[in-house]
Amino acid sequence: MPQKTLTRTTRRPRPLPAARQANRVKKAITKPTKSASAQKAVPADTLKLVPLGGLEEIGRNMSFLEYEDEIVIIDMGLQFPEEDTPGIDYIIPNIAYLQPKKDNVKAVVITHGHYDHIGAVPHLIGKLGNPPIYTLPLTKAILEKRQEEFMNAPKLNIVTVKYGDKVKVGKHFELEFFGVEHTIPESMGVLIKTPVGNIVHSGDFRFDRDANGNIYRFDELQRVGKMDIHTLIVDATNALEEGYGIPETEVMKNLEELLRKAKGRIVLATFSSMLTRIGEIIKIAEKLGKVVMLNGRSMRENVEIAKRLGYIKAKKDTFVPVQEVSKYKDDKILVISTGAQGEPTAGLMRIANGEHRHIQIKHGDTFIFSSSVIPGNERSVQALTDNIARQGALVYNSKLLDIHSSGHALAGDIKLFIKTVKPRYLMPQHAYYYFRYAGGQLGIEAGVSEKNIRLLDNGSVGLLTKDDFKVSEETVPVYYVMVDGLGVGDVEEVVLRDRLTLAQEGMIVIITTLDRKSGKLVKNPDIISRGFIYLRESQELLNEIRGRIRSIISRIPRHQPLDSDYLKSLLRDQIGQFVYRETNRRPMILPVIIEI
Amino acid sequence: MPQKTLTRTTRRPRPLPAARQANRVKKAITKPTKSASAQKAVPADTLKLVPLGGLEEIGRNMSFLEYEDEIVIIDMGLQFPEEDTPGIDYIIPNIAYLQPKKDNVKAVVITHGHYDHIGAVPHLIGKLGNPPIYTLPLTKAILEKRQEEFMNAPKLNIVTVKYGDKVKVGKHFELEFFGVEHTIPESMGVLIKTPVGNIVHSGDFRFDRDANGNIYRFDELQRVGKMDIHTLIVDATNALEEGYGIPETEVMKNLEELLRKAKGRIVLATFSSMLTRIGEIIKIAEKLGKVVMLNGRSMRENVEIAKRLGYIKAKKDTFVPVQEVSKYKDDKILVISTGAQGEPTAGLMRIANGEHRHIQIKHGDTFIFSSSVIPGNERSVQALTDNIARQGALVYNSKLLDIHSSGHALAGDIKLFIKTVKPRYLMPQHAYYYFRYAGGQLGIEAGVSEKNIRLLDNGSVGLLTKDDFKVSEETVPVYYVMVDGLGVGDVEEVVLRDRLTLAQEGMIVIITTLDRKSGKLVKNPDIISRGFIYLRESQELLNEIRGRIRSIISRIPRHQPLDSDYLKSLLRDQIGQFVYRETNRRPMILPVIIEI
Repeated sequence: MPQKTLTRTTRRPRPLPAARQANRVKKAITKPTKSASAQKAVPADTLKLVPLGGLEEIGRNMSFLEYEDEIVIIDMGLQFPEEDTPGIDYIIPNIAYLQPKKDNVKAVVITHGHYDHIGAVPHLIGKLGNPPIYTLPLTKAILEKRQEEFMNAPKLNIVTVKYGDKVKVGKHFELEFFGVEHTIPESMGVLIKTPVGNIVHSGDFRFDRDANGNIYRFDELQRVGKMDIHTLIVDATNALEEGYGIPETEVMKNLEELLRKAKGRIVLATFSSMLTRIGEIIKIAEKLGKVVMLNGRSMRENVEIAKRLGYIKAKKDTFVPVQEVSKYKDDKILVISTGAQGEPTAGLMRIANGEHRHIQIKHGDTFIFSSSVIPGNERSVQALTDNIARQGALVYNSKLLDIHSSGHALAGDIKLFIKTVKPRYLMPQHAYYYFRYAGGQLGIEAGVSEKNIRLLDNGSVGLLTKDDFKVSEETVPVYYVMVDGLGVGDVEEVVLRDRLTLAQEGMIVIITTLDRKSGKLVKNPDIISRGFIYLRESQELLNEIRGRIRSIISRIPRHQPLDSDYLKSLLRDQIGQFVYRETNRRPMILPVIIEI
Repeated sequence: MPQKTLTRTTRRPRPLPAARQANRVKKAITKPTKSASAQKAVPADTLKLVPLGGLEEIGRNMSFLEYEDEIVIIDMGLQFPEEDTPGIDYIIPNIAYLQPKKDNVKAVVITHGHYDHIGAVPHLIGKLGNPPIYTLPLTKAILEKRQEEFMNAPKLNIVTVKYGDKVKVGKHFELEFFGVEHTIPESMGVLIKTPVGNIVHSGDFRFDRDANGNIYRFDELQRVGKMDIHTLIVDATNALEEGYGIPETEVMKNLEELLRKAKGRIVLATFSSMLTRIGEIIKIAEKLGKVVMLNGRSMRENVEIAKRLGYIKAKKDTFVPVQEVSKYKDDKILVISTGAQGEPTAGLMRIANGEHRHIQIKHGDTFIFSSSVIPGNERSVQALTDNIARQGALVYNSKLLDIHSSGHALAGDIKLFIKTVKPRYLMPQHAYYYFRYAGGQLGIEAGVSEKNIRLLDNGSVGLLTKDDFKVSEETVPVYYVMVDGLGVGDVEEVVLRDRLTLAQEGMIVIITTLDRKSGKLVKNPDIISRGFIYLRESQELLNEIRGRIRSIISRIPRHQPLDSDYLKSLLRDQIGQFVYRETNRRPMILPVIIEI
């Protein structure tokens, strides 16, 4: 392992994590000159195109188009927590700009049923006046299932569409849906006809090829390419990955071979949302005479929806409940499980930890991870893999074999997509800045003029006219709205900062009980501490802290009423400095003054 | 992005991170039947081989051999903190087994100067009686430099050796050093002749090839292979990576091309410990007529040491201080900087954040990351890359171009190493279980008998006789010893658990002041909270909590003395439940009872 910078003689206050630091600078750079609410009137015949999320992270996808008094929203996703948002469930897009204009929202298009595109719907749709949602039947079913989990969320107002449908929305917009391949069935892109020109939003997409190398649904895209596209908003997630995706047929061939050669039970872990692949795996299981057990709530629910809508077809006795695992021979068992990312509560973790009621790992089991590792989950997945292998099972993952293909097009296919759609302006989306920058480079290679590449940030306001795409100097608010437990938006910057400090250094609460009249200590100061050092084993330090508190109190002049804020800040500073000198740590010092 | 399991209607208490969960099970599995201190006598003529770290993580490398009353230690490294050890500086190996036997320690071999092999020396060497350290001159210089930073650490007792040296140690051991290639000059492996046979420790190694494909130092290894090797302890870090490493000449060729074509200033970020590459880069700079500025303390210090020892040779005016950056034309400037991992305090972060006193990013700058991303740092590095690119600089990294080669051999070369050394027993090390498992498979392919592969864990005790290598059922202690500020080992499990809870959920301190005689509240309960919700904006919740406290207190019977532990647990449970019902969060509840 290489060496990091490390010094122990002095220590500066621990800095914020890198992501947050970078964020800070970025904000300084993109600081709005005016907030959009106070924004001056946009010239007539201008379309606003605003990404609210998904451009500086993977997740929280949401953008909207606004023309005069009409707004169309595309997607409404959530973002999973970052290392600098501990304890948060997830982050949703900020609708501060949209909320006062909710009557203008004419349509919400949901491109597909993944959480980073639908997850914020229960939290936001009511606040936006519950506008109609245009989406496909599978996405509808997933949306409705999720909505049920939120007691106060309104019944959704969904308009089911199919590929090729054209829908007039308001006076100014027409939507036209086209199919794209992704890892969940019924994914789509949308062509939006606007008064300034045709805008294409790719949705999340990849190209998948049949055995002859023909791209599925390519004709739909070619048709779009003939329609004089003003701006293409394109999925640039994998713009830095050279080449072309592994065809799903290849993935399935390799999986079938693995399943065939496994001697014992097989546990295959993947995302419960990869319904296309799950459907194919079930077919293989039937071919090999295996029964299928679904492990994990979201796996059972999603497969149930896909079966109901005909996306997964299975014989009557293919599915058996996991509690019947002991009734079948080992080589007849295929378990399809959630938890491929090492999520602590998911099905696979319970198996690996010996906490599953029906499945214990034994020699001869084969575990297959048919998924990529989401950045940030590397350690958890490694620990999970080690844990399973250590118990005697064989483990396969996509590093060892082509048993997973990304849901997002790689560089070669992104270029082909752009070349086919032939937009005048290109706006890469769905990833970090540098990925989108690379997406822009692909655009240039695909024939888009270099001066027509637009790298917006979350909250940037694109101003589109027939022959132009400017980026406004003004921005709309996109600060984090965090969901934590039942609270939405009530965990703010200050709470997160405290959580980070508590995690790094712990805290000490100092309780001094004073006589209101004499200002003298009524009893020995109480000290409690968590996350600092184990106080029971640090009596000496504790006594020294108490001594210092007494001495600070005794030095306070008595001729005036006690200024408890002043005393608190004295205690905080002086005890803080003392603790730092003694331990080189900076726990949060919380003084409490009780006057009686 | 694919969907994760997510449900909002009920929430279980947040589980421990995956790594820790896995760890827990693993511990149960490898639970010692007896601790080694109470260990029964080992049969005569048995050599103990014990890894204390480096087998279940990347880092904290340390192992030892023990024969009768003599011990030889190999390496003494540190491990950087994990996600489940927040706020910790680093983790060092546990020497609970060795400390009582410190008089038996005859030698410490340090294979090379990276922190994961030397970092624990200042903390441990004194506790082991400051035994002689056998190492090479560059490692010696780095060790001594670091030792200076620790005021109470003893002066090191270093015996400088060179490749090929043989050293008799005690009655039973002879050490013979051989050179290996790594990313720092003067890396070595060691052949240890013991009464039961010859043990080889590979150190960290890779094979590097010249333009004709010849492997540097391969003859030294071939010589080792002729010496009837009982056991090979081999670096398996990259056992899951197919193929062979990129030759360093290739890396340098690509870097030279990049440096040549850059039009403006160049900032090249790499590990300050990759002194071999840094030396080569300086040569290229001279060839291209550029001056070199070193950015970051460890970069300046390490290059200084390497220059002093002749590993880096440079003309007199090649190095200029970074404060003179404005004196040179942009295309004459090469900055070599620390911080390629997005470390918050390192040189590159200061530049990216606009906090560097002399270097501000501008259009036309080229930034080159010549390093791999250490797992866990993906997000920080991404944020850093985005931040730099956003300010107009070009960014290159090893995903885009072969401008970094790992310091650890890939699968093909690991196999070749094993084949050349021809050991009877193989013990893969320096990585997670699954990597070592893969290393074992490579051993089988290289001709080691399957039954002779030994996958030990940290703390496992290998019992080696002339014709056997058993793994004892007993283990030695290897629990984490954590360094946090000035404290070593005083942050324990309970403190870390508290830090994790505080980070996830925050805390509420409830202070109730009671009259000792009447048991009645003397004043309104005081409540402080951090990391939970922003209390100033939650007055209603606060008032409800206060009301509940009053009601709990009022229901306590008065006919007996106050049982303050009972009252605390009442408050903890009931306020905890109330807060959970209201918010679905579980902050730590800390009741304090003040009786006056």
